[in-house]
Amino acid sequence: MKALIIGFGFIGRDLVKAFYEKKDAIRKIDRDFKVIGVSHSKGYLHNDEGLDLQRLQHIKNLEDYGSSYHAGESSLGLIEKSEADLMVEATPTRIKDGEPGLTFIRKALNSGISVVTSNKGPLVVAFHELTRLAEKNGCELLYEGTVAGAIPIFSLVRECLQGDRVLRISGILNGTTNYILSRMYFDEMSFELALKEAQERGISERDSSYDVDGIDAACKVVILANALMNRNVKFEDVEITGIRGITQEALSLAKKSNFAIKLIGTIDSTLEVAPKLVPINHPLCVHGTLNAVHLETDLAKEITLVGYGAGRETVSAVLNDVLTVLRKKKKAA
Amino acid sequence: MKALIIGFGFIGRDLVKAFYEKKDAIRKIDRDFKVIGVSHSKGYLHNDEGLDLQRLQHIKNLEDYGSSYHAGESSLGLIEKSEADLMVEATPTRIKDGEPGLTFIRKALNSGISVVTSNKGPLVVAFHELTRLAEKNGCELLYEGTVAGAIPIFSLVRECLQGDRVLRISGILNGTTNYILSRMYFDEMSFELALKEAQERGISERDSSYDVDGIDAACKVVILANALMNRNVKFEDVEITGIRGITQEALSLAKKSNFAIKLIGTIDSTLEVAPKLVPINHPLCVHGTLNAVHLETDLAKEITLVGYGAGRETVSAVLNDVLTVLRKKKKAA
Repeated sequence: MKALIIGFGFIGRDLVKAFYEKKDAIRKIDRDFKVIGVSHSKGYLHNDEGLDLQRLQHIKNLEDYGSSYHAGESSLGLIEKSEADLMVEATPTRIKDGEPGLTFIRKALNSGISVVTSNKGPLVVAFHELTRLAEKNGCELLYEGTVAGAIPIFSLVRECLQGDRVLRISGILNGTTNYILSRMYFDEMSFELALKEAQERGISERDSSYDVDGIDAACKVVILANALMNRNVKFEDVEITGIRGITQEALSLAKKSNFAIKLIGTIDSTLEVAPKLVPINHPLCVHGTLNAVHLETDLAKEITLVGYGAGRETVSAVLNDVLTVLRKKKKAA
Repeated sequence: MKALIIGFGFIGRDLVKAFYEKKDAIRKIDRDFKVIGVSHSKGYLHNDEGLDLQRLQHIKNLEDYGSSYHAGESSLGLIEKSEADLMVEATPTRIKDGEPGLTFIRKALNSGISVVTSNKGPLVVAFHELTRLAEKNGCELLYEGTVAGAIPIFSLVRECLQGDRVLRISGILNGTTNYILSRMYFDEMSFELALKEAQERGISERDSSYDVDGIDAACKVVILANALMNRNVKFEDVEITGIRGITQEALSLAKKSNFAIKLIGTIDSTLEVAPKLVPINHPLCVHGTLNAVHLETDLAKEITLVGYGAGRETVSAVLNDVLTVLRKKKKAA
């Protein structure tokens, strides 16, 4: 298989590193796997014979690779002209219109190229359009990295709970707000100071509103509802309350009764993101930058999955999606 | 596919019910799926045209089904004479020699019949023998229900963490001891009283030593180590300390420092089952009859999976294994 990586931020870079370090395991599934193109907003690398992953993992900017770099050309051009079978889309999230990822994903699927994405934007805007497009073109569309980072919630339901029906989902879906609430809860820090610390430590997005006002969590609620509960919902369908109103007083009252306050996304008869009291002994009650997803199902009853919801660990989810595509295409071949 | 169910205890019975309730979903994978035989220690039902699942789910004893019952005949005979492609083995666990399940599984795999089992015994005694036997005969051997009940830990690692290397596993692997320790911790109950309550509520096995002295958890450690960490270990390799020595004093000291005491199975450079102090904020620190498995991996770093570790929820794991076999055989066909 020939793969493209669209976007060379930390996920693109970490994926190259993982491809290189795990090359023997990958070869066991697909002897001919290679990365033939990598793009960023300013141009792309392209070599149909395969790029040198060892060299690629050590450069900071694509320009530094040397030959094969096409300055000023667009990712769309790379998708069009390459002979890729798989595209990993890891451009920045823009939830308003899903761009530029949405255009890239549409282009790839329409060209019969399977897509693995870690970008929430396109899925929030056009989940059902894109899954139908993938089906129509006989491609895979996998997006494990879009929700709760390294937590493999979509493949868990798809592969490990095949016989279960998901009845309800609730989760801590944003690591930044969980970090802030944990600092306020355990260390009696003010909201402002905890937010500042999160920003300084690189835990918060530059625009803190995206995390703090529950927008990021709401995007994840939309994707979970569409993917795991057969809904057809949009961002506007989520009732959102962020964590700006959480006071030290509220937290210490909660603490006295053995509760914590967590920003919880819920998919039930309604879709909601709001601060909730969670018993400290509940499996969902995890702290720091951890995320947790709690499933209620008909057979297993309750399953909770906990892990890192953002950052470098997300490469685990993206790599798992890539290997899933390799395996499926191998079987189909 | 034609399936046998060996053992008609609560797992066998719940599986029949699940097959019946989910018949439409199963038919989507395999239009010809049927259960052609069900056995218990006193005889078996057999009908190569398929048994009536609706009738089967309402009877308490196989004899009550009516026709097709062969009194006094052995499960081995059923495996030999039927034309099954799949056997669900759900006989009682005996960890000393893995029997009678071990003989049934060997027989099935040698006859090219794929096996799904919820029985720890055969896997503790002969893990590598059986996995090699399955491979040699082109069969599947799946055992999700053997460890931590409804928690799909084996399929999680196999399907959702394909690119990750598991470096360390720790877990609460026995619901009975977790129930006892939770009652002692939260309600200041004595060990004896908590054990008695667990027995009265049907949470403890008849022989409480199996749970309380860590034997059950040690069996699970052996299977996890062999299946997920490429080890070749036996029951004797696990250092085991049970929970009989845990006093009310120890628990209240732990509580004062924000720890709980949990019976933890660990797979690291050594294999161990022993009571450990666990910070109450750690994702592994779950209570009541819940189980939890904490994985440390190279990419995702930390993933914790929480769910019910025994009882009726286990049918989720067994059904998932069955559906996995149906899917694989469909692809291969």
